[in-house]
Amino acid sequence: MENQNILIYDTTLRDGTQREGLSLSVEDKVRIAVRLDRMGVAFIEGGWAGANPKDGEFFRRMQEYRLSSAELVVFCSTRRAGIKAKDDPMLVPIIAAETKWITIFGKSWDLHVIEGLRTTLEENLAMISDTIAYLKSCDRRLIYDAEHWFDGYKNNPDYALQTLKASLDAGAEWFVLCDTNGGTLPDEVAKITEVVNERLRQWGSSPQIGIHTHNDAGLAVANAIAAVQHGATMVQGTINGYGERCGNANLCTVIPNLQLKMGYDCIDAEKLAQLTEVSRQVSEIVNLAPDDHAPFVGASAFAHKGGIHVSAVQRNPLTYEHIAPESIGNNRRIVISEQAGISNVISKVETFGICLRKEDPACRQILQMTKELEQLGYQFESAEASFELLVREALGDRPKFFTISSFHVYCSTESTHINGLVGSQATVKVMVNDEEHLTAAEGNGPVAALDIALRKALVSFYPEIANFYLTDYKVRILNSDSGTNAVTRVLIEFSNGKRRWSTAGVSNNIIDASCKALVEGLEYGLLSAVRHTKV
Amino acid sequence: MENQNILIYDTTLRDGTQREGLSLSVEDKVRIAVRLDRMGVAFIEGGWAGANPKDGEFFRRMQEYRLSSAELVVFCSTRRAGIKAKDDPMLVPIIAAETKWITIFGKSWDLHVIEGLRTTLEENLAMISDTIAYLKSCDRRLIYDAEHWFDGYKNNPDYALQTLKASLDAGAEWFVLCDTNGGTLPDEVAKITEVVNERLRQWGSSPQIGIHTHNDAGLAVANAIAAVQHGATMVQGTINGYGERCGNANLCTVIPNLQLKMGYDCIDAEKLAQLTEVSRQVSEIVNLAPDDHAPFVGASAFAHKGGIHVSAVQRNPLTYEHIAPESIGNNRRIVISEQAGISNVISKVETFGICLRKEDPACRQILQMTKELEQLGYQFESAEASFELLVREALGDRPKFFTISSFHVYCSTESTHINGLVGSQATVKVMVNDEEHLTAAEGNGPVAALDIALRKALVSFYPEIANFYLTDYKVRILNSDSGTNAVTRVLIEFSNGKRRWSTAGVSNNIIDASCKALVEGLEYGLLSAVRHTKV
Repeated sequence: MENQNILIYDTTLRDGTQREGLSLSVEDKVRIAVRLDRMGVAFIEGGWAGANPKDGEFFRRMQEYRLSSAELVVFCSTRRAGIKAKDDPMLVPIIAAETKWITIFGKSWDLHVIEGLRTTLEENLAMISDTIAYLKSCDRRLIYDAEHWFDGYKNNPDYALQTLKASLDAGAEWFVLCDTNGGTLPDEVAKITEVVNERLRQWGSSPQIGIHTHNDAGLAVANAIAAVQHGATMVQGTINGYGERCGNANLCTVIPNLQLKMGYDCIDAEKLAQLTEVSRQVSEIVNLAPDDHAPFVGASAFAHKGGIHVSAVQRNPLTYEHIAPESIGNNRRIVISEQAGISNVISKVETFGICLRKEDPACRQILQMTKELEQLGYQFESAEASFELLVREALGDRPKFFTISSFHVYCSTESTHINGLVGSQATVKVMVNDEEHLTAAEGNGPVAALDIALRKALVSFYPEIANFYLTDYKVRILNSDSGTNAVTRVLIEFSNGKRRWSTAGVSNNIIDASCKALVEGLEYGLLSAVRHTKV
Repeated sequence: MENQNILIYDTTLRDGTQREGLSLSVEDKVRIAVRLDRMGVAFIEGGWAGANPKDGEFFRRMQEYRLSSAELVVFCSTRRAGIKAKDDPMLVPIIAAETKWITIFGKSWDLHVIEGLRTTLEENLAMISDTIAYLKSCDRRLIYDAEHWFDGYKNNPDYALQTLKASLDAGAEWFVLCDTNGGTLPDEVAKITEVVNERLRQWGSSPQIGIHTHNDAGLAVANAIAAVQHGATMVQGTINGYGERCGNANLCTVIPNLQLKMGYDCIDAEKLAQLTEVSRQVSEIVNLAPDDHAPFVGASAFAHKGGIHVSAVQRNPLTYEHIAPESIGNNRRIVISEQAGISNVISKVETFGICLRKEDPACRQILQMTKELEQLGYQFESAEASFELLVREALGDRPKFFTISSFHVYCSTESTHINGLVGSQATVKVMVNDEEHLTAAEGNGPVAALDIALRKALVSFYPEIANFYLTDYKVRILNSDSGTNAVTRVLIEFSNGKRRWSTAGVSNNIIDASCKALVEGLEYGLLSAVRHTKV
């Protein structure tokens, strides 16, 4: 028997952009639409043409593209009260968008008709049927989004069902149940979807049911699943769950649940392995940091930390993984931490290309060093380069590229140099090949000055240092209740344009902690440059 | 009829710390435990005493506190295979933790017994009953966490039910169904919880059912709710959903769903209004940025954009809000609306005892200054003292106690003074009553040195400064991808033993940012000392 198809309707470009702080250029929207089409979603809602100039431009641009699997959809509300749909100027750009499909949203909740639209219940029914019938007469196919469906149904089921009937009689092919305020619980969604299904059967109608949920109660995904289990065959949502307030149903969570756990078909199986990549590409385009803890596609979704976990997952992945990470293009990660056991150390060290046996005394030594340093405030899970240096130290395989003999850092209101800012100077004395070199530099802050001085000293010996740059700098005060005497942990991320690495430094002097992380970052960069030259 | 009670079991301090990048000091753990107790959770799981030195130390520290409503719980696995529980050294620190309640976790899944523990199914049953019976004989009350319950039950229901029986016969008072891998769907949770319930009735057993869920399928909250609807009366979870991989059930979402939407009682109604504050305090303590889009407690959870939406929500909040934001201590935010901004300013300023009218030009001025400073990186939510100084400045009511003419800060490996640490020196020139005073001081770090020098200069003029001390110091790098040139925000909390106040400083030089926050902290302390003398 074939699996049942569930059509995926992506609204990242419309409802997703309602998220506070998310704003897309026309070019961004085109890139996302093309990428979603390649992954194989059924519908891509592009925006409300006419509501803002960008959305109109987007639909014009999209006429140049021939999408391979997705239908592009334009979104609009029902016509205004008191005029005919054919005379409503709002619908002109909707038709001009030249899409085969149009989604019209209208009111299901009597409260909204009266308090929001300030019109009569009868006029609202006319607005629904007139708008749909008119657009159908323009040779378009119609999806009807029943805004506030669940709240409306709970408040006045008879009236809500009348809006359903109005949209169907006018020719809508899909009836989408929207939980606009996001407050409905899964058992209510199940029951009410069942009622709609029942009613459609009674009427002998063919239209299909869609579901559109929001995450205000943390239940958007559960609600979408409950609707599918009770007859919905289209799911609306957004990549990474972007959307107003708490967001929309996250398609990166809904799709693998439906497809891998529940036996529905949403997108081609081989395209499902693009999901993690799509999630990260979209987060790059919208310029929001990806959520490492997102289900299925997060960088930590298959990260194992506890010692017992790691040895078991290596013997049989089923023991601690609910699905195979490769199925959605993610991968397993072994994390080093306080809870680490010897098996964590061994498997972590393997990723550096070092083979250790359990009996090797270096294992216990590494574990011991890790625990002692973590007690001081180090944290290696976000500083893998520092951990690798520690391992190489324990194995007697850590080359000394340079040593800092001393440094001085000076900040003063009187060394103000740009725009009245407080400037900094640093001097560093570095030993390279048994020779001392003293350099000085200025910077905005003390750490920037130190960084510049250090590179200045080293670049003539190690020219590759010119290609290393800092991509992230984080400071965490550990025992913050000790005030300014507290222990400080600095995490620095470096890049050479090809790969990234992170180091940590801990001290009760923030300059000293930063210096430690800087030194290890440069050292690790040099070490991998040497290794890559050798190979 | 009374609402049914659901007991909240918080495991932020144990399972929450499994989150990658989350690491807590003993002091952090104590602060979180005390705060959770004040909000009224039923159980606080503190950690696995003995598994790492920190957790043991935490339980020793907690013996000094008398919690008002919560039971502190220590966590441990069943004894090792092949020995008696009374001879297992692992249980020694568990008993030494001196808690009334102990949670023991054991294996429900035959696969884990064989592949993970590498023992026999019979020995696993003996491990469960022997461990529970032994701890019960030590006068402890027992909660049994059935690890991988759902996967175990699906794989071998008979064996899973035998482990349930073993734990009950040995004296466990709670049987907690754990979805350890987070892959179970809500309808499966419902069905299997129903089975357990049924079996307990058949056996005539009194124990109660708990639920422990993970978010790997984005369904942790939905699964917890499904279990409660089918008989569970304890919910385990963490604040903000922290936890391994994709996290645990988020108590900040579970509690309002159960209490406000489903009619259960979890915590006192008036304490529910602390939920947003607790969420944010815990995120501060663990130093992870709060999720603005989190259900219920996120800063964007009740954010409305301009236009019809806003006027509708003001006429009737029901139209666009699924619950009243005040019920969980959050508030409605109107985005991009100057009018709303002004009423915010007025209501905020009222809390300082200052009455402003809408027409007052100071309103617009304060709003403008706030927006400009927030654009620079200031954040006044956690720095109310800085905000009050800004308001008083706009109203011409900010006395000048002192002005910093200049400062110099110096850190060097050669001014090492204690234990080979990198020491710091600072000099500050301060104007008080038109006279300049120059002082110098040493400290562990540059900010400590600056703080000491500043107080030294001021204490003869303002002796009350001797009573001000720093209780918290936090650093956040704002645009961390600009590396060491990034903008730094420093938040400092002060206390005079009676009350606390917080200030902020922003600069792309961390020393300068710290200096700004220090100066405002001393200034605010002096201002309130003056006001209290007047009154």
